[in-house]
Amino acid sequence: MLDNIIGINMLYDFYGDLLPQKQREIFKLYYGDNLSLGEIAEDYGLTRQGVHETVKRGEKKLKDFEAKLGLVEKYEKGESILEKIKIDIEELIAARKDDLDLVSKLGEFAEMISRLNQ
Amino acid sequence: MLDNIIGINMLYDFYGDLLPQKQREIFKLYYGDNLSLGEIAEDYGLTRQGVHETVKRGEKKLKDFEAKLGLVEKYEKGESILEKIKIDIEELIAARKDDLDLVSKLGEFAEMISRLNQ
Repeated sequence: MLDNIIGINMLYDFYGDLLPQKQREIFKLYYGDNLSLGEIAEDYGLTRQGVHETVKRGEKKLKDFEAKLGLVEKYEKGESILEKIKIDIEELIAARKDDLDLVSKLGEFAEMISRLNQ
Repeated sequence: MLDNIIGINMLYDFYGDLLPQKQREIFKLYYGDNLSLGEIAEDYGLTRQGVHETVKRGEKKLKDFEAKLGLVEKYEKGESILEKIKIDIEELIAARKDDLDLVSKLGEFAEMISRLNQ
């Protein structure tokens, strides 16, 4: 999944700060802002091929970071657990809506969980 | 806090895989296994000064990674929230111990939360 545009942008969100500045800029223009290789080449005084290679090298680095640290995978696992907990708490609140003390405590749990935005 | 031994070992746990292999090995021998500079120098055929510089360069890299990605800081914030939620759930379970359906649901929350080991 990390080969599609969303996946690559996600890798960039997690590891983009680890790329050298110029590579990061070019990568962002290409994937984040959807500029063409030709447009970026013109802005940076590079060849289209040069920009293409910079983007590909950046992709490779981001994937290497993920292979080593696995932050995206971990984030996605965490998100699916958090989503499940939130739904379960909402259901419990709905089922026990007359128990105000309990509803208040469950609301606090939901609030604390929402601060675990990873 | 990241300057003390525990802090440095924590940085290593998070970012050690991003260090080049030899630097990683030397770093681990020095900080993780508490070998002396002299012992490591002998094993690697380096000078004490060479080992010292390798360790210091490694430290700098780990701190740079933390400055860019902030994983240790995020982990610690997350841990303190998780700890608070766990305690609150335990207290609620104790206070409502006769409500078996509720206790079972709270137990499920606690189990899901324990899987968020970040």
